[in-house]
Amino acid sequence: MTRTVYVNGDYLPEEDAKVSVFDRSFLMADGVYEVTSVLGGKLIDFDGHLARLERSLGELDMQKPEAFDDLLEIHRELVRRNDLEDGMIYLQVSRGSAGDRDFIFPDPKEVKPTLVLFTQSKPGLADSPAAKTGIKVISIEDIRWGRRDIKTVQLLYPSMGKMMAIKAGCDDAWLVEDGFVTEGTSNNAYIVKDGKIITRQLSNDILHGITRAAVLRFAREAQMEVEERSFTLDEAKAADEAFITSASQFVMPVVEIDGVTLGDGAPGKVAPRLREIYLDESLKNAI
Amino acid sequence: MTRTVYVNGDYLPEEDAKVSVFDRSFLMADGVYEVTSVLGGKLIDFDGHLARLERSLGELDMQKPEAFDDLLEIHRELVRRNDLEDGMIYLQVSRGSAGDRDFIFPDPKEVKPTLVLFTQSKPGLADSPAAKTGIKVISIEDIRWGRRDIKTVQLLYPSMGKMMAIKAGCDDAWLVEDGFVTEGTSNNAYIVKDGKIITRQLSNDILHGITRAAVLRFAREAQMEVEERSFTLDEAKAADEAFITSASQFVMPVVEIDGVTLGDGAPGKVAPRLREIYLDESLKNAI
Repeated sequence: MTRTVYVNGDYLPEEDAKVSVFDRSFLMADGVYEVTSVLGGKLIDFDGHLARLERSLGELDMQKPEAFDDLLEIHRELVRRNDLEDGMIYLQVSRGSAGDRDFIFPDPKEVKPTLVLFTQSKPGLADSPAAKTGIKVISIEDIRWGRRDIKTVQLLYPSMGKMMAIKAGCDDAWLVEDGFVTEGTSNNAYIVKDGKIITRQLSNDILHGITRAAVLRFAREAQMEVEERSFTLDEAKAADEAFITSASQFVMPVVEIDGVTLGDGAPGKVAPRLREIYLDESLKNAI
Repeated sequence: MTRTVYVNGDYLPEEDAKVSVFDRSFLMADGVYEVTSVLGGKLIDFDGHLARLERSLGELDMQKPEAFDDLLEIHRELVRRNDLEDGMIYLQVSRGSAGDRDFIFPDPKEVKPTLVLFTQSKPGLADSPAAKTGIKVISIEDIRWGRRDIKTVQLLYPSMGKMMAIKAGCDDAWLVEDGFVTEGTSNNAYIVKDGKIITRQLSNDILHGITRAAVLRFAREAQMEVEERSFTLDEAKAADEAFITSASQFVMPVVEIDGVTLGDGAPGKVAPRLREIYLDESLKNAI
């Protein structure tokens, strides 16, 4: 079955889903995106993703796509048309195409944003085997731009980081700036020490994870101690546990950092418990 | 007349020049580019741009497009088909489309790069009125990623910088990191003090400008003193002259930085002289 992809109001076979070569996301990475997980045909944390999209657009003085108020319906239509049970819906808003290349933003009255959405089917997304064994990460220098709180498509370095991890026989990379871990290539990073969950405070340095916000809320509701502060790579290697969170990995234990095994090399108690709570609560509230 | 655009081997009317929404330049800024100026229907510094393109591709482990050896002919064909007298040819190589989104690079044996080229007509490009009056710049913090020597399409921040400059009633922005000027939004930056031309040394911090290399060579041949070192924003404001170089602006005098007028507010002696030499020599060698 060919996928049906949404492009500016049209539902198209994926091979026909195209944008102009003058689109500003293609020419100058002038676009933002969101990824919403789908479990059992329902959307996880949709409102959070929509709110963050609105914030990203605002930070870049990018106008909302005309279909902004229809985004829930478009997501649901894509789930229906693609018989999506488990997986993700990717959404991108680009500043659009002015029909030429220019560093100067086009007039928003004349040039409308490009809106693209597509599905990615991942059967058994919530039952990932990696969640039972944990993943291994390497550390790499964080050389990304300074506004990582805006979810832009400037993902070249995270993509390069993922490749460096794979070449090192690992699953992912943690980014380190001035000795402190910022986050993973496409996820927020956490350590657990003496029962306390430690994760970097929000700022322009990291993505304001939707899953992060939910997981921290659930952790506090479950009377777990949470500390939002920067932690060093050395602290991480000496931690009892570590984990990442993202919209499509939920809560994923990390069992090795730069070849250093954490605890006994298996997921500890905190990450699996948080994963369970997050999935339970998110499924209850899925729409 | 509609422009003819080159996309992966085809010469297409510009309205049909499209790429897949799964193209990695669109989804994750995984692409590199070059801009070659055209004067009198001939290409300026073509070999330099081709060499830098090859370097950018190598730095990102991106394969050359199949048509790499035909790039000169493709440039010339675009000049012919578009009756291009003065202007630019923009070239972009993207890692291509694997038909889905993934941080992991696609297998280069299976997924070929996307190659796009288009012309931009700029009649009288070499006779820009701005070259006679000079331009005004503001300074902004340089928050770009750490590999500015690779000419990637991650141009969101330079584009934002250009908008900040325009809002401030100026023409462009100079980027400042730790008090030192790195470069302009899409050009290299220079100051002149006591007859000495000062410009930042090459490193990962700045683009290795093709025009920069040529201009410095011509300056040395003309017995001008050149010092390649970092300079501060304060030093720039106290300079006798300032200018920028780029493939499409050649040598362009800067007469104001953050509201501070340089010299008597008109282009000095060095920048106009370098512009003249650069244009003369480049036209002689244009192909």
